[in-house]
This record gives sequence, C-alpha cells and structure tokens, in this order.
Amino acid sequence: MKNFKEEWNRRMIDINEILGKFLPAEEGCQKTLWEAVNYSFTAGGKRIRPIFMYETFRMFGGTDDDLIQPFLAAIEMIHTYSLVHDDLPALDNDDTRRGRPTTHKMYGEDIAVLAGDGLLNLAFETACKGFDRDLKKSVAALKILAEKAGGYGMIGGQTVDVEMTGKPVSEEIFSFIYKNKTGALIEASMMAGAVLAGAGGPDIQMIESIAEKVGFAFQIQDDILDMVGDEEKIGKPVHSDEKNEKLTLGSLYGEEKARKIAWEYSHAAVRMLRSLEEKESDASFLINLIESLMIREQ
Amino acid sequence: MKNFKEEWNRRMIDINEILGKFLPAEEGCQKTLWEAVNYSFTAGGKRIRPIFMYETFRMFGGTDDDLIQPFLAAIEMIHTYSLVHDDLPALDNDDTRRGRPTTHKMYGEDIAVLAGDGLLNLAFETACKGFDRDLKKSVAALKILAEKAGGYGMIGGQTVDVEMTGKPVSEEIFSFIYKNKTGALIEASMMAGAVLAGAGGPDIQMIESIAEKVGFAFQIQDDILDMVGDEEKIGKPVHSDEKNEKLTLGSLYGEEKARKIAWEYSHAAVRMLRSLEEKESDASFLINLIESLMIREQ
Repeated sequence: MKNFKEEWNRRMIDINEILGKFLPAEEGCQKTLWEAVNYSFTAGGKRIRPIFMYETFRMFGGTDDDLIQPFLAAIEMIHTYSLVHDDLPALDNDDTRRGRPTTHKMYGEDIAVLAGDGLLNLAFETACKGFDRDLKKSVAALKILAEKAGGYGMIGGQTVDVEMTGKPVSEEIFSFIYKNKTGALIEASMMAGAVLAGAGGPDIQMIESIAEKVGFAFQIQDDILDMVGDEEKIGKPVHSDEKNEKLTLGSLYGEEKARKIAWEYSHAAVRMLRSLEEKESDASFLINLIESLMIREQ
Repeated sequence: MKNFKEEWNRRMIDINEILGKFLPAEEGCQKTLWEAVNYSFTAGGKRIRPIFMYETFRMFGGTDDDLIQPFLAAIEMIHTYSLVHDDLPALDNDDTRRGRPTTHKMYGEDIAVLAGDGLLNLAFETACKGFDRDLKKSVAALKILAEKAGGYGMIGGQTVDVEMTGKPVSEEIFSFIYKNKTGALIEASMMAGAVLAGAGGPDIQMIESIAEKVGFAFQIQDDILDMVGDEEKIGKPVHSDEKNEKLTLGSLYGEEKARKIAWEYSHAAVRMLRSLEEKESDASFLINLIESLMIREQ
C-alpha cells in the first residue's frame, strides 16, 4: 500500500473526531469526574482497537457509520479505563503515561478509581446508542464487548498478570495472560466490527482467531519496547516490567527470539486475512497495520 | 400485612437462591478473581435492590421469572462492586463490612480493584442473558441499569460525595449526592422491574419518582444508623462518616429532624404506591418494606 503512514494518520484523525462526539460534557456537580474521564480518554493513544474494529467492519462491507460509531467509542473507553486502573499505586504504580501524569497523579487515587469505573460504565451506556439503529446487530456486538472485557477476558488476564508478578511463569500461564489481558479487546474489536457489518458465524470465528494472533504479536512487541525501547518515543517509563518484577515472554525469550515469535504470529494473522480477502473486500490496510505494529517504536 | 418479617425473610432466601445461579465458578487461571467476586457478593447484604426490582415487577403483573432473574443478579452485582471500590483505602478505607474483612483486606488492593471491575462488567454480561427471552424489554432494562449506574447516576453521586468530604455542603449538593449515590440504583431497580413487566411510560416515570423518595429516606436512615446505631447489628464500624470528616444530612439536621424528614419521604412514596395500587396489583409488600426500612437497625 502506497503512503500507508499517511493513510494510518488520516484514519487516526477520523477516529479521534468520532471519539470526540461521545465525550461527556464537563459540567454538572460531577464535573471533576468528567474532567478525569476526558483527561484519560484524550491522552492521545494509538486508537488501535477502534481502528481494528472500523477496518474489519469495512472489510465485511459495513457502511452504516451511525451504527458502528458508538462501538468505536465504547471499545476505546474500555481500553482507557483498564489503563487508568492499571496505573494505580495498588497495581502497576505508574506516574506517567503517554508523556503525561497518570490520572491518579492528576486527580488523586479516589477520583481515578471512580473515573475508571465511570469509563467502563460509559462504554456500555455508549454501546446502547446503537440499539435504535439496528437492534439485533448492536445487541450481538454489545454481548461480545461485555464477554471479552470481563473476567473471562481482559480482567481475567489482568488478574493472573498481577498474581504472577515476581513468580516463575509457565508458558501455559503466559498464553492465558497474553490471550486475555491484551488479546481479548483486540478480538472484541475485530469481532464487533464483523458482527456490525453483518458477517456470518464462520467468518466471525476466523476473525476471532486472527485477532488472537494479532494480540499475541502486539503484546510481545510491547514487552520488547519495554526492554529496549526509547522512553521519549513511548511516552512512559521503560523497564517498568523489570521494576515491577514482572516476567514477560519478551524477557523470557530474549529480544531476538521474542521478535521472531511476534513476527510468526503476525504472519499467521496476515495469511488468514488474505484468505478472507478472496471473498470479502480489500484487507490491505489491515495487513499493513498489523505489519506496522511490529516495527513500531511506541 | 400479617407476618411481614416472615414474608421478607422468605423473599430474601428466594433472592439469594436466584443470585446464587449467576455466580461464576471458582475455576480457571483467574480463580482468585472469582473467589474475590464471590466473597464480596455473598457477604450477606439485605438484597434491597433485587427485592425492590422483583416486587415492582410483580406489582405490574410480571410473571416471566427467566426474564427478570439475570437483572436481579445484575443490579446486586453493580451494588456490590460499588461497595468493594468504596471500601478501598483511597476512598472510605473501611476494614470491615457486614461483619467480615472487606475485599481488599482479604485479597489485597490490586485484586479488590479488579474484582470490583469484574463485578461491574459481569453485571452487563449477566443482563445480556435476558436478550434471548425478550429482546425489547431486556434492552430497555439494560439501558436503565447502565444510565443509572454511571456518571450521570451512582458514580456521579459517589464522585461528589468524595469531593465534598471535609467541606461545607449545601442542601443542593446533598440532594445531588443522595439522589445519585443511593437513589439511582433504587430507581434502576424499580424502573427495570416495571419495564420488564411491560409497564408503560407514565407508570415508569411514577416509579422513578417513588424510588427517588425511597432512596432519600433510605440514605438518611443510613446516616442515622452511622450516628447512633449498634456496630454489632450493622456489621460495620459506626461513626465512619465522622471519622472520614463526611458531613451528612443526618448530622446536619440532628437525629430527630433527620428521622422526621426520612419519614416524610417514605410516606410520600407510600402514598404514590397506593395510587398505583388502584389500577395495578397489590403493593402491600412493597409498602411494608419501605416502612420497615425506616425502623431497621442495620
């Protein structure tokens, strides 16, 4: 794809504009809550999850923007709340994120707990906005979001990640953590995109499997960046895993082998996308995106 | 109503049996998460919210138990998560609740944050189980739950409550806090019960207004118990508001006036219920319940 970087940038601008529509107004007695919510939500992430959702939606021929937009916002709200809570002193105890003080550093721990809760809840409130547009598709997408974000998905992965800190970790446990902590929301993004475009059961299963591989590759790349990345480019302190006595697949395998494994997962995902591409629309943006995430520096 | 206490007790047993069906199995890599979730969920609360939901459902002629049961569990999960997070050191810093160590005292702060998140998420996962039974009614009930539990409802109230700690509070702000922190979930309970029974718009508005009054009365009674109650009966330390420099309507008015105001709210709610009773079924259990909550000692 020519000018992929430009395309990516353009889509990120689009997504940020869409997300902006769903931000709460900073007013009312609970103004501080909304300020903290918006502070964390607009910290300038890569918006990977809504981009994956939107692109999968397009690949399956989805065109109803009013239907998907609330879900683009919802998935990013879920991702953001997980960061706000993950940064808390009781968890990762991080002072900066994306080059700015973390939410609890700006607003205090109490408001950060509530802002995280508020964001998770707001994700479901926002997803409900799809109901009037297409009840059956929205309901299916909301169910996917709820399932993948919860204790059988992301929160399950986070729990085990927290519990295993400072302990020896088996490959089986690593698999569980990576599939759930990181993979689950990428699965939810791509699956919801497919469902909202009207994709059928077998395609959704295939998308789930593709997203799982993307999630693995993405998390291992994150480990590598934490080991050898540039703090200024990443916008948060490197070596935080080491500081938190957190063993990762990256540190377990070492940089070289970890890179190789991440590429294997990416390539497998790309191959599956190419086979889907034969009967669906062009997946070249998605394929480029997956490959770009492997060479990212932040 | 004869033998109201027995009736209440019987219904609490029923509700606990229903709630038990929706508890996650304590298995999988994330076993600790589910243990912490179940620990907080089965701590033996009064189950006021699901009881209000169920009774309102019955009053409007609701009979489909399979439809309402997931929502009975969902509302109690939302209430429970709010307690788990509220007890955290960064918020109320309470060591005991219902006569047992709080979740973070048992499982650590990190797991308590995640267990709270998991419970909120599980509430929505559980509410989704109603979709197959009656899509339209479930969707309407889920929307109510999401709206009332969030930043425009319960979390909004909690935020202002936290912010106002140690500060002078106007009656307007007290109204906001009580309506949202406590009232919103009681509103959600009764409104969802009505919606799931197929009640119409005007009735739902009336139920919202009744529930708001019940919420006010309930919270003021809570203030009074914290001022003059018996720690052993309540199962948590009294004078926690004083300890946390939290001004309440109870302490502002003093015990006698506070009791009077709580009764006024209760009576207003009861009067409105009686007028609904003329066209709907018997509301005598609900009426007795509201009055009993005014003379409760825990």
